[in-house]
Amino acid sequence: MNFKIDNLQYCNWTRKIFEINREAGLDAIHVTIVYHEDFDELQKIINSWNIHFKDNKDLIFLGKNFKDIERAKKENKTAIFFGFQNCSPIEDNIDLVEKVYNQGCRFMQLTYNNQSLLASGCYEKKDSGVTNFGREVIKEMNRLGLVVDMSHSAEQSTFDAIEISEKPIAITHANPNFWYSAKRNKSNELLKVLGESGGMLGVSLYPHHLKNGSECTLESFCEMIARTTEIMGIDKVGIGSDLCLDQPDKIVEWMRNGTWSKSKNYGEGTKNNPGFPKQPKWFLDARGFKNLETGLKKVGFSEAEINGILGNNWYNFYKRI
Amino acid sequence: MNFKIDNLQYCNWTRKIFEINREAGLDAIHVTIVYHEDFDELQKIINSWNIHFKDNKDLIFLGKNFKDIERAKKENKTAIFFGFQNCSPIEDNIDLVEKVYNQGCRFMQLTYNNQSLLASGCYEKKDSGVTNFGREVIKEMNRLGLVVDMSHSAEQSTFDAIEISEKPIAITHANPNFWYSAKRNKSNELLKVLGESGGMLGVSLYPHHLKNGSECTLESFCEMIARTTEIMGIDKVGIGSDLCLDQPDKIVEWMRNGTWSKSKNYGEGTKNNPGFPKQPKWFLDARGFKNLETGLKKVGFSEAEINGILGNNWYNFYKRI
Repeated sequence: MNFKIDNLQYCNWTRKIFEINREAGLDAIHVTIVYHEDFDELQKIINSWNIHFKDNKDLIFLGKNFKDIERAKKENKTAIFFGFQNCSPIEDNIDLVEKVYNQGCRFMQLTYNNQSLLASGCYEKKDSGVTNFGREVIKEMNRLGLVVDMSHSAEQSTFDAIEISEKPIAITHANPNFWYSAKRNKSNELLKVLGESGGMLGVSLYPHHLKNGSECTLESFCEMIARTTEIMGIDKVGIGSDLCLDQPDKIVEWMRNGTWSKSKNYGEGTKNNPGFPKQPKWFLDARGFKNLETGLKKVGFSEAEINGILGNNWYNFYKRI
Repeated sequence: MNFKIDNLQYCNWTRKIFEINREAGLDAIHVTIVYHEDFDELQKIINSWNIHFKDNKDLIFLGKNFKDIERAKKENKTAIFFGFQNCSPIEDNIDLVEKVYNQGCRFMQLTYNNQSLLASGCYEKKDSGVTNFGREVIKEMNRLGLVVDMSHSAEQSTFDAIEISEKPIAITHANPNFWYSAKRNKSNELLKVLGESGGMLGVSLYPHHLKNGSECTLESFCEMIARTTEIMGIDKVGIGSDLCLDQPDKIVEWMRNGTWSKSKNYGEGTKNNPGFPKQPKWFLDARGFKNLETGLKKVGFSEAEINGILGNNWYNFYKRI
C-alpha cells in the first residue's frame, strides 16, 4: 500500500483546505496547532479542532498512530496528527508531556527560533545545546512516543537531541544548507548524522527556505531532494511542506514575535517584505504533490522511491516510533 | 543616617520572624516571593503578603524605593522589598515585566540554577549567555528600575548581563569562590567586573555557600568579606543572608526540583543530607547581624565601613537604581 503524507501544514483551516488535501490524495498530515501558546491556551485550540473534526467528519479525523494512516487510506479521509512548533504548552512541568500526548500531540519541537527551557533555537547568538530540563523531557517523550522535532533548533542542540533521544527524531520542515543557505536550513554533517540515527527530514516548500524563493523551479527542488537522499538515505526524506494557506500576514508577525519583544522582529522576512511569501507556482497547495511526482521522476527516481518520498517514508517512520 | 539591610530572606513568614527582624534592627529586607511560580500563582502569593502587611502593620510594609528604607527607620518598621529567584512569573511575555514591577517586584533573577528563557543557570552543563528574549527583558527591567539579580546564574550569562544592563546589577546572595568553591559561588574575575560596573554582592550565610558549612567560623566569614571588598570595592559588598527560617525540608526539595524532573535532584545537598542545612551558631537568624558587627570590627573594618556592609551599601544601591 502506498501513502501520501505532508508532514507539516499550518493553514487557516476551513473545509475548503481539508477538501484540497483530499483532492491531493493526502492520507495524513501533521498539523502545527501551537507556536507560543501555553497549556491553557492549548485547550482552546483543541476545542476548536474538535469542532473541525465534527463538522468535517467525512474528510478528517484525529490520528493517533500509523494504523490511522491505513484507516484514512481505506476511508478516503486524511488523518490529522497534532504537533507543536514550540514546547510552550508543557511550560516548566514534566508532567504536562504526558497530558499533551494524551490530548493527541505526536510531534513537539524543543524550540522555535529562540531559546526555550529545553534547547536553543536557530536564531539565538549562542547554542547551549539541550538543557537539564530538556534531557528529562526527551526521556519522557521517548517513553510516550512523542517525536522530537528540531526543525527550528540550533545545530548543537540538534546534535544533542539525536544523541540523547533513544528513538529517532525528525526535522519535519527544513531544507539542506548546501542548496540554499538559511538559518533554518541544515548542514550536510547534521543531515548525515540524522539519517544514520534513523531520523527523517521533511523538505519544505516555504519560499524562505527555497533557492530563489518563490521563483524556485521544480527541477531545482527535485535535484535537491536527489542530493539529500544521497546524504541521508533514500528512505529518510519526506515532505513537510510548511504550507500556511489563507493565513493573514499578522500571523507570521506573531509567529516571529510572539510576546517576547517590544520591537518588531522580521525573522526570515524583511521590513519591506514582512508578510507570508508567495508559494512557487508548482506548489500553491497540496495538489502540488502531483507536480512533485512528475519532477522526481524527471530527476531519475524510481516509482518506489517516489512513493517513499511522497509518503511511505513518513509512514514507516510513524510505524517505528 | 545608618541603615541595616538583609538583602535576601526566604522564610516561612510569621509574626515571630518579623519581630526577630525588628529585634535585629533591620530597616529593610529583600524577600524572595517566587521560585518557580508563574504569573497566576504569583497573584496568590501577593494576596498572602497583603494579609501579612495587614496583620503586622506595626512591623512591616511593602517597600517601593529607597525612601521607604528611610521611612522604615523613622517608624521602627522593616520595609519589605519583593524579589523573584526565577523569571517564571513573566512567562514568555515582555509585557508582564511592567505588571510584576507594578505589583512591587524590585529584584528578579534571570535564572534559578537551570536554563531559563533569559539566560543559563549555574547548574547547566553549558552556558548560552543572555538570550534574545533576555536582552529585551533586561532593557525593560532597566527602564522600570527592576534590578537584574544573577545569584543563581552561570558565569558567562552574568558577564553578559553586566554588559547588557545599563543599570548596575546585583548578586544578592552568593560568596566568592576563592573562599569556598561551589557552583553558586563566584569567581574573582566576575566579582571585579561586577564591582567596577557599580554592582553589588550580598554575601550569603547559607551553609552550602560557607567554608566548613554549618561549622564556618565568624572570623573566617569576616576575613572573606575583607578580601572581597579588596576585589570589589568597600562600598560594593552587603549582606544577603539567604535565611530560610522555619521552612520545612520539602521546600528545599521543591526549590531544587520544581516540576522539571521525574527523578530527584539534591542540588547542593546529598541523598543522605537532602534537607536545609543548620545555620552557623553565630547567625541563627537576623539577630546575628550583631555578631557580624563584632566580627567585622575584629578584622579591622572602621565603623563607617561596617555600617556600609551591614546596610548603607545596599541603601545607596537602592538609591542609584
